Amino acid sequence: MFVDFSETEKFLRNCKDAVIITHRSPDGDCIGAGFGLKDILEQLGVRSRVVCHDVFPARYSFLTENGAGEDFEPQSIIAVDIADVKLMGRYEEIYGGKVQLCIDHHISNKNYAEKTLLRADATAACEIIYDLAKYMGVTITKHCATCLYTGIATDSGCFKYDCTTPRAHEIAAEMMRKYDINFARINRYMFDVKSEGRMRLEGKIAELMELYLDGKLAIVAITQDMMKDMGVEIDELEGFAPITIQLETTEVGILMRQREDGVFKCSFRSANDVNVSEICQSIGGGGHAKAAGCTIDADLDSAKKMLIEAVERALN
Amino acid sequence: MFVDFSETEKFLRNCKDAVIITHRSPDGDCIGAGFGLKDILEQLGVRSRVVCHDVFPARYSFLTENGAGEDFEPQSIIAVDIADVKLMGRYEEIYGGKVQLCIDHHISNKNYAEKTLLRADATAACEIIYDLAKYMGVTITKHCATCLYTGIATDSGCFKYDCTTPRAHEIAAEMMRKYDINFARINRYMFDVKSEGRMRLEGKIAELMELYLDGKLAIVAITQDMMKDMGVEIDELEGFAPITIQLETTEVGILMRQREDGVFKCSFRSANDVNVSEICQSIGGGGHAKAAGCTIDADLDSAKKMLIEAVERALN
Repeated sequence: MFVDFSETEKFLRNCKDAVIITHRSPDGDCIGAGFGLKDILEQLGVRSRVVCHDVFPARYSFLTENGAGEDFEPQSIIAVDIADVKLMGRYEEIYGGKVQLCIDHHISNKNYAEKTLLRADATAACEIIYDLAKYMGVTITKHCATCLYTGIATDSGCFKYDCTTPRAHEIAAEMMRKYDINFARINRYMFDVKSEGRMRLEGKIAELMELYLDGKLAIVAITQDMMKDMGVEIDELEGFAPITIQLETTEVGILMRQREDGVFKCSFRSANDVNVSEICQSIGGGGHAKAAGCTIDADLDSAKKMLIEAVERALN
Repeated sequence: MFVDFSETEKFLRNCKDAVIITHRSPDGDCIGAGFGLKDILEQLGVRSRVVCHDVFPARYSFLTENGAGEDFEPQSIIAVDIADVKLMGRYEEIYGGKVQLCIDHHISNKNYAEKTLLRADATAACEIIYDLAKYMGVTITKHCATCLYTGIATDSGCFKYDCTTPRAHEIAAEMMRKYDINFARINRYMFDVKSEGRMRLEGKIAELMELYLDGKLAIVAITQDMMKDMGVEIDELEGFAPITIQLETTEVGILMRQREDGVFKCSFRSANDVNVSEICQSIGGGGHAKAAGCTIDADLDSAKKMLIEAVERALN
């Protein structure tokens, strides 16, 4: 059932011992939403814990450093930024069928929760949570504002992409004026700073990028072996997908990253009008019109072939 | 003399046949400010012309495509985003001593004009011009909003850097709501799209970057010969300087680009607290605390030595 702010407020004010589930391969938005909501629940006197299938990447330690919460048997089950229970990883089995509240901004949300606060026009789950907190009149701490700004900034590519709403800018302005967030440092760590390994890896992109379909499709494939050679972890490649659409001819870019289990995690980006969410849905994934993803369990050549064919169908 | 909005409005409403001077090596802010102000003057029935020592780079053609204005003997001389007449190039000799109005956001502004509207806390000259236009109650066209958004976005690194004001975000929100600007496409062309030559050049950065002073200083030097090898023009390297501070250890990054006359144009970036404007001032340049520049007329090795010594003095 889809619910509004009023219903969501009732739920949050009455919940107890909450677990907040974030999606696997966590990004700035789900981590920001999870830890931001944890702060808000604390203001309401509700203890909570943020969980994730994967370890939170070190670059988000400024959000997670106070800890994800003590261990307890949860009575309230909340999911943030999760369109589908499949994205919970090992938490799907434990909580997948019992989610009481989901706060999400993905149009592809499967409506799996008892109550879903969905705003598909929001830049980020964090944008919804900020407006919810204001609606509820709870105190927003500097740490909470930092979490929510990070989610909005990362999901919008620092206010660069189509999915950026006017509201995202207004919230950023409010956060700068009222909560004195250190936005430049956040953005430096989210968008600019990288390891020497990653910097060298970017140097390889020019060689690695393969163009297909008259240059309309660009693919960069990075295998486990290549990551080992470069001394880079898979999560350090998270912000990399936009690089695949940097050439003017490119309509669709795909970053293929091989996980340790051999499966390719494919991140799609659309430069202009191609809906990559539809392409990904056609091969078992999902996401947004301009940024979507899927996984392919196949060898490199077969995986590439499948991707090229899917994009070719979409372009025709 | 420094003036306020009221004095500036009086000047603009009474000016006639205006020339609007932008700085040499033009960037998004001075081009956006120049062409945005040209639109505003048109609303006031004043004809104007935008001039620049250099040709406006092709990537800004969406701002300049309606033309810079017909040729006439100007009666009103306006400078935008120019802190010092030296930055006018060949227009210094023609107009340097006769500027009637300067609209600028550089704290280092030399107060060379008859009237100067200076807001050193503004993200961009375009931020000032937007607020001025609202103050004056003139119609802001979609093209004007596109110009002014571009200046704010480019000078703030798409709302990423310290110099971003809450007001910049509020203006962006207003522009998206009221003027339907195509911000995602602007940002794609300003920040993401590049030529294959430039993409390959980025691939060289990993090799070219030299670290000094225990990694606190990073220098990337690109000579004319290297540009020729890569098939890239000097103005295509404009948005490149931030790459020099991408490593976590780096406090100061310098991009050295050799002009055709052999002189090195040095763009400084500060990652955190070092004031690079002061460093540049110590060697004849200027700018902002986090982004500044200077030129050095020397061979590559001597120029580098001078830069390293200047940064070392600042770090001590």
